[in-house]
Amino acid sequence: MKIVIVGGVAGGATAAARIRRLDEQAEIIVFERSGYVSYANCGLPYYIGGVIEDPEDLTLQTPESFFSRFRVVMKVRHEVIAIHPDEKKVTVRNLENGSEFEESYDKLLLSPGAKPTQPRLPGVGLEKLFTLRTVEDTFRIKDYIQRNQPKSAVLAGGGFIGLELAENLRESGMDVTIVQRPRQLMTPFDADMAAFIHGEMRKRGVRLILGHTVEGFEEKDGGMDVLLKDEAPLHADMVVLSIGVTPDTGLARDAGLKLGIKGSILVNDRMETSAQDIYAVGDAVQVKHAVSGQDALISLAGPANKQGRIAADNICGGDSRYVGSLGSSVIKIFDLTAAVTGLNERNAKAAGIETDQVVLSPMSHAGYYPGGRLMTMKVLFEKGTYRLLGGQIIGYEGVDKRIDVLAAAIHGGLKATELKELDLAYAPPYSSAKDPVNMAGFMIDNIAKGNLKQFHPRDVAKLPRDGSVTLLDVRTPEEYENGHIDGFANIPVDALRERLGEIPDKKPVYVMCQSGLRSYIACRILSGYGFACRNLSGGFRFYSAVMH
Amino acid sequence: MKIVIVGGVAGGATAAARIRRLDEQAEIIVFERSGYVSYANCGLPYYIGGVIEDPEDLTLQTPESFFSRFRVVMKVRHEVIAIHPDEKKVTVRNLENGSEFEESYDKLLLSPGAKPTQPRLPGVGLEKLFTLRTVEDTFRIKDYIQRNQPKSAVLAGGGFIGLELAENLRESGMDVTIVQRPRQLMTPFDADMAAFIHGEMRKRGVRLILGHTVEGFEEKDGGMDVLLKDEAPLHADMVVLSIGVTPDTGLARDAGLKLGIKGSILVNDRMETSAQDIYAVGDAVQVKHAVSGQDALISLAGPANKQGRIAADNICGGDSRYVGSLGSSVIKIFDLTAAVTGLNERNAKAAGIETDQVVLSPMSHAGYYPGGRLMTMKVLFEKGTYRLLGGQIIGYEGVDKRIDVLAAAIHGGLKATELKELDLAYAPPYSSAKDPVNMAGFMIDNIAKGNLKQFHPRDVAKLPRDGSVTLLDVRTPEEYENGHIDGFANIPVDALRERLGEIPDKKPVYVMCQSGLRSYIACRILSGYGFACRNLSGGFRFYSAVMH
Ligand SMILES: Cc1cc2nc3c(=O)[nH]c(=O)nc-3n(C[C@H](O)[C@H](O)[C@H](O)COP(=O)(O)OP(=O)(O)OC[C@H]3O[C@@H](n4cnc5c(N)ncnc54)[C@H](O)[C@@H]3O)c2cc1C
Ligand SMILES: Cc1cc2nc3c(=O)[nH]c(=O)nc-3n(C[C@H](O)[C@H](O)[C@H](O)COP(=O)(O)OP(=O)(O)OC[C@H]3O[C@@H](n4cnc5c(N)ncnc54)[C@H](O)[C@@H]3O)c2cc1C
Ligand SMILES: CC(C)(COP(=O)(O)OP(=O)(O)OC[C@H]1O[C@@H](n2cnc3c(N)ncnc32)[C@H](O)[C@@H]1OP(=O)(O)O)[C@@H](O)C(=O)NCCC(=O)NCCS
Ligand SMILES: CC(C)(COP(=O)(O)OP(=O)(O)OC[C@H]1O[C@@H](n2cnc3c(N)ncnc32)[C@H](O)[C@@H]1OP(=O)(O)O)[C@@H](O)C(=O)NCCC(=O)NCCS
Repeated sequence: MKIVIVGGVAGGATAAARIRRLDEQAEIIVFERSGYVSYANCGLPYYIGGVIEDPEDLTLQTPESFFSRFRVVMKVRHEVIAIHPDEKKVTVRNLENGSEFEESYDKLLLSPGAKPTQPRLPGVGLEKLFTLRTVEDTFRIKDYIQRNQPKSAVLAGGGFIGLELAENLRESGMDVTIVQRPRQLMTPFDADMAAFIHGEMRKRGVRLILGHTVEGFEEKDGGMDVLLKDEAPLHADMVVLSIGVTPDTGLARDAGLKLGIKGSILVNDRMETSAQDIYAVGDAVQVKHAVSGQDALISLAGPANKQGRIAADNICGGDSRYVGSLGSSVIKIFDLTAAVTGLNERNAKAAGIETDQVVLSPMSHAGYYPGGRLMTMKVLFEKGTYRLLGGQIIGYEGVDKRIDVLAAAIHGGLKATELKELDLAYAPPYSSAKDPVNMAGFMIDNIAKGNLKQFHPRDVAKLPRDGSVTLLDVRTPEEYENGHIDGFANIPVDALRERLGEIPDKKPVYVMCQSGLRSYIACRILSGYGFACRNLSGGFRFYSAVMH
Repeated sequence: MKIVIVGGVAGGATAAARIRRLDEQAEIIVFERSGYVSYANCGLPYYIGGVIEDPEDLTLQTPESFFSRFRVVMKVRHEVIAIHPDEKKVTVRNLENGSEFEESYDKLLLSPGAKPTQPRLPGVGLEKLFTLRTVEDTFRIKDYIQRNQPKSAVLAGGGFIGLELAENLRESGMDVTIVQRPRQLMTPFDADMAAFIHGEMRKRGVRLILGHTVEGFEEKDGGMDVLLKDEAPLHADMVVLSIGVTPDTGLARDAGLKLGIKGSILVNDRMETSAQDIYAVGDAVQVKHAVSGQDALISLAGPANKQGRIAADNICGGDSRYVGSLGSSVIKIFDLTAAVTGLNERNAKAAGIETDQVVLSPMSHAGYYPGGRLMTMKVLFEKGTYRLLGGQIIGYEGVDKRIDVLAAAIHGGLKATELKELDLAYAPPYSSAKDPVNMAGFMIDNIAKGNLKQFHPRDVAKLPRDGSVTLLDVRTPEEYENGHIDGFANIPVDALRERLGEIPDKKPVYVMCQSGLRSYIACRILSGYGFACRNLSGGFRFYSAVMH
């Protein structure tokens, strides 16, 4: 059997290795357009920032090591320029010398990935306008920095790659500005959670220009101007375009393969395309979102690796299935860790799912053990059914842990109320006896049982201030003095029972505290005296971050 | 409704707070024998070692704070000395003045915990023989150390508390010896995994005297002698007895409540005892192991807290159920983190479950990103059915994360083969595109599909050295030179195809490398040429640790 693979990185290299492990006799040829295989895409920003020092660390394998271990022929600087499904052949161009040749296959696997989205704007293509995808792109940026010592950079686009670059360039001492049309960075997060990311970026001196449309680029004064709509241009010594990625599927389209969203390749759960004996995996394919069941593009390395292995199994006569992706991802943003899994509010709404949510601020580990820090955790579930939909967490230590636990819980089909039952490992340096995930479960259980009714930061401005409802802040007088929401009167939770007389009878009470915990207790107390109460979800801490 | 609670710490205090949140009118009285409520049992060793500096950090609440927030009457230094289920009364002794009184209840909750197991040995009770359970015990040990500056300590018993104490005493500069009858520390782990713990303890200068029976204690030369069977006594300036805990259930026994293992209190999944209106939770009760379904004693704070909340719900007329425990736990051992969930081989065998397992040594995060370290991970599943039974992980960063993911996966009823599908969050500082948990899943999938056959460290000595089988070490010559197993010949994996002629035809091949990965690849190559192969599970790295 002869297998040809297009793309020699996450999906392609993994598939090649796996096919060899399943079939010692197969002939395996991988064509890779760039000069490198098995490279660590995800490490590239850290090489630019100097966190990863040795360029050799960027490639997990070379064509030579791949051949000696796997007898896979890795042809770098070879681009597959056409697929002929009927003849079971591909046309390949040797980029070193421009020569072209045909290669036949019994099975073809496409893992061409996704390319940086290039808007049709004036100036795209200029030398100082960089994009980051390959090792070559990385060296180009690094070289430029070393030779020109740029003092400032504008990043157009604030997703994963933009943010990782922002951190790395900032840490090397540059002035960094992120500009983009969306009003929030990192769209896998809801806007409320993204506020914490904005806070960290600003604290670190990264300038954020959100909600502004880039209209083009111009070379100017030895640097670049980024042209904005209705606004003076931004000037910087270099610009990186990082507004997202687009499936790199011209090849598949030209071959007549069926395509999905944004030109992605359509595959079934065996990673088979619409054409006989052609498989596709990775950033180039459309997948099912495991929670919404909807079509999705998910450009992440975990799914690409898993799909590569599944395609390999099926190519070798097995039957492996891709169960869909949760879009679980995590990013380091300076000291902060931000992680997400499953659906966020926006996606859920788009999928027609009615959501409810809890927001909490637990410690990373037991408060009495040194080093613990707060995280902000938002857990989403379906209203009424309590189906667990997703989670978003931002904080420090232990954020990645709780997201992975939530991901496993979603995979296991747990209801959101069942999070309270998870038996997680506890010792003071690692967690609390009530782990944050359990705590979210308790809160959701309270919603399910009618013990907790909430209102949200977005509701606060609309609350009547005419005395028809009571607005209550149950923090200490000191906390209240340091900042409170207009219209909320202060009665500390521990004085509530003595001062019940101050709360007008029969009127609904909207209660808030710092995190939501004390106000929940206050609500329980007030409920015991017949008041209808609502608790500010996430408390003043969340409110301040969101409203900032 | 009047609720009396015995024990004001993990289970008892949690239940008291929850009952108040559910019922503002209830009368809640907690009797606590010691002088403190809501104390951080799990933090006590760290106060002794000075990691936690402020003694106030050891109590999360005081009777005063509990009253002002929850209107719960917390009577410290009050011991409940009898329960009268028929009269719905308890007899209480005020330990300050010796007076006794009766207190009636509508509902009684027992959360008396477990006490340090005290063997009937000569010398038990001596002043310099400490145990650690309460805040008072902690102060006693801390005072003794501050006043007498002991240079050496013997810990009798090497479980969680023994090890945490060993670390804390060692870090304060003392000579520390752990002595016990079992041949391994930390019995929640299998002996092979415990070997890594032994290694760390010895590296840190803790002397381990395993497999030796303590026969008594004697004051000697201003310190203590620990008398051993058939052996010279151990001498030290202080001794702590930490051989385990026993349910503190004299009270329940005397009241005629039905008891289980080791005198624990029998409860149903609503935490109801055999007596009307009496509930019990925490270390004192017998639970169901969520994997084996067998009766178990699990003395951990997470379960105690969860059970306290469940009992509270039921006391207040709700219907909450305890789903059983996985025994998930984690411990810091100097720099090392060791964590476990579900069944280990020993427990599984005792439960009549036939197990199989994978052992792997993945990096905590992507190898190319600085700071990653190896962990050793053992995942257990049921032979044939691939039911996920448990996991044990020892390493550094990220160990607690993977155990919690495994715990969630077990809870979700995932098959061990499904671990390969978990969509976990990946970025270089946090994980690898193939997360360790996924990797375990790949390996188990290979076993399920017949692509991976294993042999284990315990089998190595029994392998024939008579040429009837081939023993192959596929590491590099340098690695081989640095240490190998007798009888294994060296052919590096990357030279295997060229040197196939050196491998005798038709004979089974037992292959090993450092971690198991290269030897797995070698097995796949050899299988392709018709050889029957077996892979050394965990590789030389695991073998050396286990055999040491
Ligand atoms: C800077 C950066 C940081 C990232 N960080 C993370 C992260 O932290 N976490 C995460 O999960 N994911 C991250 N990703 C995404 C992750 O790298 C991708 O999801 C993953 O690599 C996709 O695998 P793939 O095999 O589909 O495509 P790729 O790994 O991109 O490989 C596709 C290869 O195919 C080659 N190719 C394309 N067309 C042809 C052709 N016609 N002929 C020959 N070769 C062709 C390309 O040159 C490319 O090398 C990051 C990506 C980048 C660029
Ligand atoms: C040193 C140490 C370290 C630990 N570390 C960890 C860890 O890292 N992780 C973990 O999960 N678990 C740990 N534990 C175990 C954890 O603390 C217990 O599982 C948990 O506290 C059990 O809760 P409980 O309510 O059942 O009992 P406890 O919390 O022990 O509370 C029982 C209380 O009841 C009181 N009492 C008993 N009988 C009477 C009576 N007749 N009248 C009045 N009062 C009575 C006792 O004085 C005691 O204070 C540790 C325990 C200790 C001692
Ligand atoms: C380097 C690369 C070729 C490795 O592919 P690979 O050989 O499939 O992956 P690994 O080296 O992680 O090995 C995994 C295999 O070893 C097995 N394995 C791992 N540890 C083992 C052990 N201790 N014992 C036995 N088998 C083991 C796994 O089961 C798996 O084999 P399988 O797929 O046949 O089940 C590929 O991952 C790659 O190119 N990566 C870089 C690109 C990339 O992923 N970029 C995006 C992220 S930055
Ligand atoms: C201190 C102690 C009394 C606290 O009990 P508690 O009030 O139940 O626990 P917490 O303070 O963690 O609060 C949890 C409650 O707040 C709710 N909550 C937490 N964060 C919230 C938020 N942001 N918004 C709304 N509610 C929130 C939870 O739902 C839960 O309420 P519920 O049980 O009614 O559902 C008890 O845990 C204790 O004594 N602990 C020390 C002893 C111990 O556990 N030792 C062993 C480990 S060292």
